[in-house]
Amino acid sequence: MVRIGIIGSAGRMGQALAEAIPAAGHELSGGVDKGGDVAGLADASDALVDFSGPAALKDNLHAAIGAGIPILIGTTGLSAEHHTVIDNSARAIPVLQTGNTSLGVTLLAHLVRVAAARLGPDWDIEVLEMHHRMKVDAPSGTALLLGEAAAQARGIDLDTNSESGRDGHTGQRAEGAIGFAALRGGTVAGEHSVIFAGEQERITLSHSAENRMIFANGAIRGAEWLIGKAPGRYTMEDVLGL
Amino acid sequence: MVRIGIIGSAGRMGQALAEAIPAAGHELSGGVDKGGDVAGLADASDALVDFSGPAALKDNLHAAIGAGIPILIGTTGLSAEHHTVIDNSARAIPVLQTGNTSLGVTLLAHLVRVAAARLGPDWDIEVLEMHHRMKVDAPSGTALLLGEAAAQARGIDLDTNSESGRDGHTGQRAEGAIGFAALRGGTVAGEHSVIFAGEQERITLSHSAENRMIFANGAIRGAEWLIGKAPGRYTMEDVLGL
Amino acid sequence: MVRIGIIGSAGRMGQALAEAIPAAGHELSGGVDKGGDVAGLADASDALVDFSGPAALKDNLHAAIGAGIPILIGTTGLSAEHHTVIDNSARAIPVLQTGNTSLGVTLLAHLVRVAAARLGPDWDIEVLEMHHRMKVDAPSGTALLLGEAAAQARGIDLDTNSESGRDGHTGQRAEGAIGFAALRGGTVAGEHSVIFAGEQERITLSHSAENRMIFANGAIRGAEWLIGKAPGRYTMEDVLGL
Amino acid sequence: MVRIGIIGSAGRMGQALAEAIPAAGHELSGGVDKGGDVAGLADASDALVDFSGPAALKDNLHAAIGAGIPILIGTTGLSAEHHTVIDNSARAIPVLQTGNTSLGVTLLAHLVRVAAARLGPDWDIEVLEMHHRMKVDAPSGTALLLGEAAAQARGIDLDTNSESGRDGHTGQRAEGAIGFAALRGGTVAGEHSVIFAGEQERITLSHSAENRMIFANGAIRGAEWLIGKAPGRYTMEDVLGL
Repeated sequence: MVRIGIIGSAGRMGQALAEAIPAAGHELSGGVDKGGDVAGLADASDALVDFSGPAALKDNLHAAIGAGIPILIGTTGLSAEHHTVIDNSARAIPVLQTGNTSLGVTLLAHLVRVAAARLGPDWDIEVLEMHHRMKVDAPSGTALLLGEAAAQARGIDLDTNSESGRDGHTGQRAEGAIGFAALRGGTVAGEHSVIFAGEQERITLSHSAENRMIFANGAIRGAEWLIGKAPGRYTMEDVLGL
Repeated sequence: MVRIGIIGSAGRMGQALAEAIPAAGHELSGGVDKGGDVAGLADASDALVDFSGPAALKDNLHAAIGAGIPILIGTTGLSAEHHTVIDNSARAIPVLQTGNTSLGVTLLAHLVRVAAARLGPDWDIEVLEMHHRMKVDAPSGTALLLGEAAAQARGIDLDTNSESGRDGHTGQRAEGAIGFAALRGGTVAGEHSVIFAGEQERITLSHSAENRMIFANGAIRGAEWLIGKAPGRYTMEDVLGL
Repeated sequence: MVRIGIIGSAGRMGQALAEAIPAAGHELSGGVDKGGDVAGLADASDALVDFSGPAALKDNLHAAIGAGIPILIGTTGLSAEHHTVIDNSARAIPVLQTGNTSLGVTLLAHLVRVAAARLGPDWDIEVLEMHHRMKVDAPSGTALLLGEAAAQARGIDLDTNSESGRDGHTGQRAEGAIGFAALRGGTVAGEHSVIFAGEQERITLSHSAENRMIFANGAIRGAEWLIGKAPGRYTMEDVLGL
Repeated sequence: MVRIGIIGSAGRMGQALAEAIPAAGHELSGGVDKGGDVAGLADASDALVDFSGPAALKDNLHAAIGAGIPILIGTTGLSAEHHTVIDNSARAIPVLQTGNTSLGVTLLAHLVRVAAARLGPDWDIEVLEMHHRMKVDAPSGTALLLGEAAAQARGIDLDTNSESGRDGHTGQRAEGAIGFAALRGGTVAGEHSVIFAGEQERITLSHSAENRMIFANGAIRGAEWLIGKAPGRYTMEDVLGL
């Protein structure tokens, strides 16, 4: 059992964390939001989880450094300057910054990397995702993350090799292309498949989320893992030992 | 065992039929191609299967009428005039014309009709298909056929209600829309799924073809079924008793 | 907007209904449990939904008859005697009794019936289900319900034609058999697929539940539908117009 | 282009190889069967592929050593003594022996290993397979191979931790168990899925074979890869660089 404090406690992820931390057998040391006493929270915690926003990032890192505890940052929309601040802080304490705290998606991206590197370009890669009817863009950020993992493993540039949203007379599939297709409907929390289609055989690697709680659980596991680590900047891949 | 004759025997479907007819326990009474003796073939057959082309349609129907036997027409690219010729011939003999001879796809379209009619517009409909890397257009003809079945059952117009090839900032899914997504890769013979995504539940109706032989087998079953029927124009739905 | 009252309000389904009724835009007229004032609840309601238990069935039906309102009974474990009581009550008011209030599963069973009736015995039928790791029996009740639908449509007896839990030297699949396979793991709320495997093609009909709320929503739609109907005994199939 | 010779040319795999070798752009240097001139074939080849039988193994290896060329052995039913003969021959030439020449299955097993090692025992593992109606045993050899890969990665014994063919009152899933389920029907060439079911999320790794030709193609790629390698004993994992 460790003491975990939430920064950004009023947000959707903050609320999910408040439910998930005790459920995981840990102590919720407290939660703060805009203008709250982050330093006090840090002193009462073994690790911090930050889902607040870029504006508070510097103060949050200072509070963690002051208390000498690790921090997991799930905030999105970070600039290059923010990343520099994170790098500097990571000389003093363990810091994990990530755009996706799901352990399942983290592992899936790793498996996609392995498969894409080993299977030659005669195995066509397609990324399929399905989300609820309210989602306003396509492909999903996670689909792009998976496509990027495949492209890196093949040593190609995703932007110039992607076929997204096929419709009409498309011509034959380009060799080496990475395709994307998006389904929308109902209340689907998020499903992703990466398909490797070869000569008369196919490998499909999929992830399915039942709801958003998995992101809170992944963040907690990340926070646990950070405690006792040497100062440095870490990723979700490190948590899984990948 | 019945005697089945092939018109268009040199084509891809003609060759598949030549293999499938004896495999189904029937007698292959012969095959003709452009300029061949269709009347002679008709006299030696209990039924004809025509996968030749629109140009020969009239002669083929006359040969069947002359011999007093049924004919299944799988030829595509028919004009309104061709359909009139078929209608007229169907006063003398049983005629089945169809653009898809697969029994599985025929049944799937029927099931989609039933489901779309019974489930309200709060169940979003998505059509997903996957085909081999050489296919040059999207969505597939069968995907459109399935989407059309759903649209008819809901009493809406498919053209003004379809969302195909989502990419970029799409906005939320339109209410009542029928979505299409296309995957391309490898040597996939053809897979189609119609997804009904409701509040926290989903129904998926799928068809998967291992290879093109199913179209030959469906045509043979259609030809068998036609033998002994009253003159008239029939569909693959009739063969399945739908 | 209608007024719906819950009998068995403290149970798992009762609680789900208390959340789902206002979410569906209706008024929760109240909830009673063992010893509660059912007659009072009936007077304040347009329809009752009963997930209490067999012991209270008679009193619940009397309360509904007294108020002249319909009742949906989701109680399980009913005896032949209970069914007689229901039949008698259905002369006075509309009564819907069912073991599964999901609209999706109700429709899936109907589609399975249609497909099994139309596809000959050369299409092998398999029922696959997956549930969470805590489930103690296999196949699931819903899997058996789907298998039964297929067996009835084919005019065969399920008990003497089922192959469940294949393991070891099974021999070839028996002709006409209906197979069952069960997966267990994680927190899966419930997934069912009925596979029709023919010569080189396959049709798969699936249902997937994200969580248990779908059973509450189906019960509410059933209750809405019952209001204004003639006295009689109804099923979930009737609600969907099947 | 390399010259590949087939030993066991009259068998099902031999015939598939005779079709696949030229299709892959290589030269079929010849094929021999029981009593044929293996030494002569070896002299005319750059590599041999052996799908004959254990009885001829020693002679086949001697022929390859005599010609100084590599050999891929796909023969099954090998004894410990046969393996010793292979080991000894592998001091002189490159030898690859395997029970499954599919590159896709080889990669899938590797991915299962990675996933099973990284995901804790709170992720339940299930292996699902589907094969044609003629298959007489369950689970398939490949399903067991995948289960074994998962068990090894978790450091557990498969025999004492497997749950196969659930039926009836099974009780809750045992912690750490690896489950197996088998579907049978139609003409399915072979489909395998390994499911990792965690708390509210799931990862599924699947392989699907359209037909048996993939085993021939994998063997050819193995033979190509062996040419020019140092003497030694290799596996299909080596071919993929795993």
